[in-house]
Amino acid sequence: MASPRPPIDFYFDFSSPYSYFASEWIEALAARHGRTVHWKAILLGVTFQAAGLKSPVSHPIKREYTLHDFERSARFAGVPYRLPEPFPISTQNAARIFWWLADGRPASAAPWARHCLRAYFTRNVNLAEAAALRGLAAEFGIDADEAEAVWTSPQAKARLRQVCDDAVLHGIFGAPFFVVDGEPFWGNDRRAQIERWLDGGSFQATAPSDL
Amino acid sequence: MASPRPPIDFYFDFSSPYSYFASEWIEALAARHGRTVHWKAILLGVTFQAAGLKSPVSHPIKREYTLHDFERSARFAGVPYRLPEPFPISTQNAARIFWWLADGRPASAAPWARHCLRAYFTRNVNLAEAAALRGLAAEFGIDADEAEAVWTSPQAKARLRQVCDDAVLHGIFGAPFFVVDGEPFWGNDRRAQIERWLDGGSFQATAPSDL
Repeated sequence: MASPRPPIDFYFDFSSPYSYFASEWIEALAARHGRTVHWKAILLGVTFQAAGLKSPVSHPIKREYTLHDFERSARFAGVPYRLPEPFPISTQNAARIFWWLADGRPASAAPWARHCLRAYFTRNVNLAEAAALRGLAAEFGIDADEAEAVWTSPQAKARLRQVCDDAVLHGIFGAPFFVVDGEPFWGNDRRAQIERWLDGGSFQATAPSDL
Repeated sequence: MASPRPPIDFYFDFSSPYSYFASEWIEALAARHGRTVHWKAILLGVTFQAAGLKSPVSHPIKREYTLHDFERSARFAGVPYRLPEPFPISTQNAARIFWWLADGRPASAAPWARHCLRAYFTRNVNLAEAAALRGLAAEFGIDADEAEAVWTSPQAKARLRQVCDDAVLHGIFGAPFFVVDGEPFWGNDRRAQIERWLDGGSFQATAPSDL
């Protein structure tokens, strides 16, 4: 029997539209290649700061293009999308619940991520607001008081901090970020490259004489 | 008779690997859709400064990934590539010759661009060095003294400055940057979106109920 192939690491942030788009295709792509997906909620604020970067929407000229590209990329991927207001938001509470699930009920972690990403990017549910997040937890089948106790707990805060520090150590500087067999891919727009990587493991180099 | 469809604006910088990769596919993609390509040499240094941005290779953590992605993206596109040394370089002289050709012998401008991009990214010819650029001009059929007289002339300097200022005014903040029927696309990795845009003019939006 062949040994199972390693899972795909999928780093995402709950306030990243490109992460949301990727979250809608990564499972099917992985499954077509006999892989599973290891979802990892991170905070882009932490990785941006570590890498000396800023959000693309924080640069005035780039912002207008990027907001437009969010919409176009959603249509291109066939994913429903509406720019939420406010945007971006703080996502540490949703991420803390994610890791609490990942550690205790791993099968529920990715569904929680999709539940929150879809709520924020299609129904304008503000994940940064306690009342809204309590409501999402209840919809998902988590007691709202328990959810709030989790995201305010020192343990959950430490866990998320550890995950973000670990991501920085692994060179993760943005989201979505994928690691396949040790090969790093940054961005929703690396989908075709990831697919080809999974198909063949590598690409052919082209010689100058072929030009 | 149908009126001809508008050309695709293609902004590039001679020191941008992603511009080089795009320069190898944009003509064929345009031709398949009955379009021509309007090549526009710009200086990324000018657009970065105007937009408050920096090169992806100027951020230490992002740099390592980006250098790797250059190579992988070249293999993915089937384009020969070798990271030149030094990289990046100043490209205003090659760009001034480009615009001199574009204004006087327009059919030669894009071939000059491809000649220089291939020389830098496959043969490590440093476009910033006068001797190397004189040699490339001679290979291309331009008298080397005439080429040097062009790139040192106030007229050519003013022309390139005007082009870069104009690009900034049009919201161009990086390269490669494409404008198709007024629709802006930034990056070599928007190839598939440009192709679909040219195929159908737009994309379908997806309703949340389809999830």
